[in-house]
Amino acid sequence: MEVFLKPRSVALVGVPRKERPGAYVTLLNLLESFDGDVYPVNPHASEILGVKAYRSIKDVPADVDLAVISTKRELVPQMVEECVEKGVHGVIIVTQGFAEADAEGQALQEEIVRTAKAGGVRVLGPNTMGVLNAFNGFSTTFGSLHGVPLQERRMPVAIVSQTGFFVLGVGELFPGKFVDLGNMCDVDFVDALEYFEKDEETELIILHMEGLHGKDGRRFLEAVMRVARRKPILVLKTGRSEKGAELAASHTGAMTGNYRVYTAALRQAGAFVVSDIDELQDFTKAFLRLPPLRGAGVAVITYAGAAGVMVADVVEECGLRLSELSTETIARIQRWMPAWMQVRNPVDIWVGAMAHGPSKVYEDVIRAVLCDEDVAALLCIYFAPMTEEHAKIDVSDVIKEVAAEFEKPVVVWLYGYPSAEYVRKLERGRNVAVFPTIRRAVQALAFLNAVSSRLGSH
Amino acid sequence: MEVFLKPRSVALVGVPRKERPGAYVTLLNLLESFDGDVYPVNPHASEILGVKAYRSIKDVPADVDLAVISTKRELVPQMVEECVEKGVHGVIIVTQGFAEADAEGQALQEEIVRTAKAGGVRVLGPNTMGVLNAFNGFSTTFGSLHGVPLQERRMPVAIVSQTGFFVLGVGELFPGKFVDLGNMCDVDFVDALEYFEKDEETELIILHMEGLHGKDGRRFLEAVMRVARRKPILVLKTGRSEKGAELAASHTGAMTGNYRVYTAALRQAGAFVVSDIDELQDFTKAFLRLPPLRGAGVAVITYAGAAGVMVADVVEECGLRLSELSTETIARIQRWMPAWMQVRNPVDIWVGAMAHGPSKVYEDVIRAVLCDEDVAALLCIYFAPMTEEHAKIDVSDVIKEVAAEFEKPVVVWLYGYPSAEYVRKLERGRNVAVFPTIRRAVQALAFLNAVSSRLGSH
Repeated sequence: MEVFLKPRSVALVGVPRKERPGAYVTLLNLLESFDGDVYPVNPHASEILGVKAYRSIKDVPADVDLAVISTKRELVPQMVEECVEKGVHGVIIVTQGFAEADAEGQALQEEIVRTAKAGGVRVLGPNTMGVLNAFNGFSTTFGSLHGVPLQERRMPVAIVSQTGFFVLGVGELFPGKFVDLGNMCDVDFVDALEYFEKDEETELIILHMEGLHGKDGRRFLEAVMRVARRKPILVLKTGRSEKGAELAASHTGAMTGNYRVYTAALRQAGAFVVSDIDELQDFTKAFLRLPPLRGAGVAVITYAGAAGVMVADVVEECGLRLSELSTETIARIQRWMPAWMQVRNPVDIWVGAMAHGPSKVYEDVIRAVLCDEDVAALLCIYFAPMTEEHAKIDVSDVIKEVAAEFEKPVVVWLYGYPSAEYVRKLERGRNVAVFPTIRRAVQALAFLNAVSSRLGSH
Repeated sequence: MEVFLKPRSVALVGVPRKERPGAYVTLLNLLESFDGDVYPVNPHASEILGVKAYRSIKDVPADVDLAVISTKRELVPQMVEECVEKGVHGVIIVTQGFAEADAEGQALQEEIVRTAKAGGVRVLGPNTMGVLNAFNGFSTTFGSLHGVPLQERRMPVAIVSQTGFFVLGVGELFPGKFVDLGNMCDVDFVDALEYFEKDEETELIILHMEGLHGKDGRRFLEAVMRVARRKPILVLKTGRSEKGAELAASHTGAMTGNYRVYTAALRQAGAFVVSDIDELQDFTKAFLRLPPLRGAGVAVITYAGAAGVMVADVVEECGLRLSELSTETIARIQRWMPAWMQVRNPVDIWVGAMAHGPSKVYEDVIRAVLCDEDVAALLCIYFAPMTEEHAKIDVSDVIKEVAAEFEKPVVVWLYGYPSAEYVRKLERGRNVAVFPTIRRAVQALAFLNAVSSRLGSH
């Protein structure tokens, strides 16, 4: 695996001479951000993008660790043969049209595997976007990666996927390391898990799986079981439905297996199975932005009693519980409220905030609640400031200030339609994360709770 | 109900003399957008905001249709008494601290009900934000309503709620008419349903329910059954959990009942029960922006095979199915693809788009797919344009253009992190709606399908 993510030298076999989507952009990206040696290979060019090009990889006058092949499929077996002769350690085959496509592709793929195995060369793909490593600037992906430079992506999250799709990250979160296994003719989930288990730059491992091949199930589950004791593993398993399974087979040539059996086994092995990209994004965000959750008690401060009722429903459904506030905490909050209003959790703060000023009341109440021993996490609910009038009662600065004083997760749900800038600003606060719905906020806390029970703390 | 949403004259009882949150802002809003007569009532002022004020509602020298009371709770019974003497038809009691609070509040509320009933006056509340009617500019809510002027809110959607929370709308969608029932001491869900059944400005009715009082269940379900035959009714029922139920009782004094029994009865009566605000928002958006769905066949055009697999899973889970594309449609798409690639639904368009140009290929493929008889709706998946490079392969203009030619819903899921402006621009296209996840896009289609089966078309 090391050779794929940390090569010292790389040959790009099949770079076009002129600008077009694909390997040309990969070369451009590598020249910009990768420190190692890069050798373009193209039989019809002597120079590409100002770099000397070679007719064959065998003509490169230096050692090559890794070859990235993106020629037509018919040419790939020969290119792999030449890589073996050259003595490379790893080959990434970007080209599509192999086991996932038709019988001819299947035969070509088998030929490649034979050649590589005989030559002691590891193969990633075919049908892969390859890898990305933000820590050393090495990426074989073509595309501008949402305009976020590699060095700004050094997050302790690795994504191992059966598609190039996730190189773009999940929502606004980008992986520090990414591996697209494609058709998995050789390098597979077990190789990746073994690597990331020991990789010190990785703290969270995400697997996107469509399926496994043949009898790999047991080896894979053993690897999950071992690695999950050290680092949380999130798994998004697609191809659940009959139709989805059929499509997965044609997408990467993998057999999906029975979803329930599969995910039950994964859960038993210690992985966290998520049901969609949203959960993947939420749990990753929670893990990166929030401190560990030590307990199941959740407190809520809300501008709307109706939202409090909704939270109560969801908290119970997610296996957490509403904190029982101490009499001391309640007395402190009661000072802001009319006598007839019985203070409880969720804390409906509206009447007090209107009477005494939102920031003053919010600051005191959030601090009182976070001091309470039965409060392991806090959910704040208020209006997204969409007008100047709202901005006057905005409490984001107060939340950021107080949340930073406690090592407890503070999650926020904003009612209305907050701007991306507003959310980003709020999330610059320590221990604060914003979620788009009440349920997603509470589920993220439940995930942190599960991580704490399994691993102690992260 | 009419007197609450379309009064000709209104008295605001308990407007403070000076600016502060609450009734003062209501007066300000009414003077700005309401055409009828407005009379502030305050025993200590002769003029507020340049308008003559009266010591008592009885001093107003003209007929008053509606009184809005926001004095301290102790004074409310007397104010209601005076309203009866004045001969108003309806009273909105904004004040909190009645049946939802304590025994004293309960007693005060009972006194109010007796007085009003004896005097033939209908009461909305107490503990309510009142009403909003974007069509005539009448609103008793205090707050700037997210900066969106009332006249821009004339949407054929009515929200009936047990909280003021939803006056802000659901996400970015605003109700054309809004009623907060509060403690429901008199006016209730049945009154509201009967009104909106006949209201020609309303096509979709949303109910946020925490619960009903006493033995109203049967009357309510009969009303739902009747109205649901004419207009879709979306119901968000909160207070599902034990804790949530307890909180709902203290929030509006309502008994929540058993959630399962309750929602099963609602479904049987023809309502659409949603599980959270997201669904409320998605279904409302689908209803407003998309044409009726005539069939269960969904086609998908995607830049990523992995996303196709995910859609297949969700489509099946939502009770829809992937369209079987005709041989004619497939042949037309195949022209853009390499021979080894087997075209099917979901249509993985990436290889063709890269080879021949995204816009050209997308335009032809989307038109081919929408022409297909087995395609009732289309889901388009592509990258949110986050960089200049992405902008070059952006296909939003093509989607808008072609979607407008067919009377079929086109839903879009953008991978990455699209800006709110980009989404708004895309949704200006006819028959196009953007959803934040694959599941939510498909669920919205499933909702349209259910509406068509129940009501024919909207």
